Amino acid sequence: MAEAQPPARGARRVLVIGAGLIGTSAALALRRGGHAVWLADADAMNLRQAVSLGAGDVHAGEDVDVTVVAVPPRSTAGVVAERIEMDPRSTVTDTASIKAEVERGVRAALSGDTAKLSRYVGGHPLAGRERGGPHRARADMFAGRAWVITPMEETSAQALQDARWIAAECGAVPLAMPAAEHDRALAVTSHLPQMVASALAAQLARQPDTVLQLTGQAMRDMTRIAAGDPQLWADIATGNATELAPAMRELSASLLRVAGELDSREGGAAVRDLVAAGRDGLRRIPGKHGGETRSFGIVPVLVEDRPGEMARLLGDTAAAGVNLEDLRVEHAPGLPVGLIELAVAEDAVRRLRTALTERGWTLTDEPSV
Amino acid sequence: MAEAQPPARGARRVLVIGAGLIGTSAALALRRGGHAVWLADADAMNLRQAVSLGAGDVHAGEDVDVTVVAVPPRSTAGVVAERIEMDPRSTVTDTASIKAEVERGVRAALSGDTAKLSRYVGGHPLAGRERGGPHRARADMFAGRAWVITPMEETSAQALQDARWIAAECGAVPLAMPAAEHDRALAVTSHLPQMVASALAAQLARQPDTVLQLTGQAMRDMTRIAAGDPQLWADIATGNATELAPAMRELSASLLRVAGELDSREGGAAVRDLVAAGRDGLRRIPGKHGGETRSFGIVPVLVEDRPGEMARLLGDTAAAGVNLEDLRVEHAPGLPVGLIELAVAEDAVRRLRTALTERGWTLTDEPSV
Repeated sequence: MAEAQPPARGARRVLVIGAGLIGTSAALALRRGGHAVWLADADAMNLRQAVSLGAGDVHAGEDVDVTVVAVPPRSTAGVVAERIEMDPRSTVTDTASIKAEVERGVRAALSGDTAKLSRYVGGHPLAGRERGGPHRARADMFAGRAWVITPMEETSAQALQDARWIAAECGAVPLAMPAAEHDRALAVTSHLPQMVASALAAQLARQPDTVLQLTGQAMRDMTRIAAGDPQLWADIATGNATELAPAMRELSASLLRVAGELDSREGGAAVRDLVAAGRDGLRRIPGKHGGETRSFGIVPVLVEDRPGEMARLLGDTAAAGVNLEDLRVEHAPGLPVGLIELAVAEDAVRRLRTALTERGWTLTDEPSV
Repeated sequence: MAEAQPPARGARRVLVIGAGLIGTSAALALRRGGHAVWLADADAMNLRQAVSLGAGDVHAGEDVDVTVVAVPPRSTAGVVAERIEMDPRSTVTDTASIKAEVERGVRAALSGDTAKLSRYVGGHPLAGRERGGPHRARADMFAGRAWVITPMEETSAQALQDARWIAAECGAVPLAMPAAEHDRALAVTSHLPQMVASALAAQLARQPDTVLQLTGQAMRDMTRIAAGDPQLWADIATGNATELAPAMRELSASLLRVAGELDSREGGAAVRDLVAAGRDGLRRIPGKHGGETRSFGIVPVLVEDRPGEMARLLGDTAAAGVNLEDLRVEHAPGLPVGLIELAVAEDAVRRLRTALTERGWTLTDEPSV
């Protein structure tokens, strides 16, 4: 080891296997918490980068309390089982975004040995981004995010507690549920949207230039995640095929049903129903901070497209004592002006509008009701 | 009329029928340009609101040069034809988001009279938002946006010129093409994404609460437009059924193809191909300002969630002489910290990173390549 790690009260020892975006971020968070962290990765470059970022030291067989396996989904079960065989003591958890298949793989690799299986508990932090790599890691990657933990029948109380501890040390909110429930949920909230975004973006590849010229913000929003990694998504989709395929069929069926109605020129009711059902679903998405849906007020402001204008706007917002909950930039392509939508607490809308108007900003909307 | 409008050199007279979001915005833009604008709307409340916003005066039969029909798609052809019958002189254009059906309707209502048809030319400004109403109108709604104009065989040079003039006066970029081409393009770039967003959001309506808890930014992005108006979308979808239904079938087919491969547990290649094709399509979406796709660098910065922090960040960005091309807020729900991604020109990334680091900001990424 190149350098000794400072001891800390209550400090624990963690091995992170897989120094990509997720593993390195977890390691950084654990280091920040004063814990001893070692890293391992089959990719020497990833490992070197993660170490140089201060995420931990190269693992050379040191004993640890918990092992976090953060390798690609397809390799997870094998690495988990190998680690359990190799280390007769530590709890082993993982971060793969599919859980039932990993569980099956671990169980098979350990031949159903309950003593060994008692030290494994699956995990999945709901964080990440389109682009990976240790250089994009950050200690607060999981701050405030849900971190699903999927205990098995065999999982010991200690192992479950260790997995919760990892999630909490990373600033995440541990959320325990069976692997099957996790996979069913993620099929709908993550894997299906990814397939749909890719399918929508793929249609653009076949279009003439005119069509692309007429592509607006809606299409951009709906294809952002299409930038994801093909092999990673192949692993996730095949690993959760039993949940994902029916979800894809259900979505296709609802689109085909409407398409069929449209053929008859009587599709109005079907489209109205679909859009109305969508509005119902939309209202169920929880708001910022993972809590109940909160209704923010939107204050839209015209801003000239030059250095400093947005800073001035946000400075004036802060001077009004108003905290920004969210912000959206709507482009005005071709002209040096943009629309910034400031989302603030409902009860701050009036105050902010008054303050910004007094400072000469052009507001373009009324408080939402 | 309550008040006289000031005359202006080169000023023209325009009637806007339909004082909703689009009509009122166009009227505001034309007024700003010094033109005389009258308004008409079957909805007295809309009309009153638009007048009080300064969009124009109530029309009482005054002669005009151009009439802009900005009523819901299903009423457009009727109102266009009625106006052409009533006023033997003015050019009539519209703003409906479907064009071939409106054209057919106008032609039928005017019994194919070429003299009358010569004064009509379809139009569609690519602007708007999920929520409508005159109180959300703004003069720069169309600034820099494409405004498609769909001349027919019968359309006179004068009428075409008038429609282009309306678009240009509203700050938009006129883009002439046949109605069929417009409808084919919009089916892919607007109507299909809307149906998909609604279908995705509708699936959420049927899920248990756990699933909603696991809904992240991807799903939020992909369902934002699902807030649209059911009746408006029913009109648009049925009005463009011949283009939309095949696009919905094509998307469904690509999803079903992958779902079928997933059933066989051999779906890896199919998913990989789909995601890779999506990445190809994504690269074709034009960048900001409607021009060629530009590749921006992303500078991600951690910002505390309290008044003034974002202002300070953008102030420091401006002080570095760097113009912000785009900005995305990534939430860290539950914790007082957020990730702000600043998009800037590639050649400004290094300068900005240095400047922000010097000022004590925490950057979390390397320059994208």
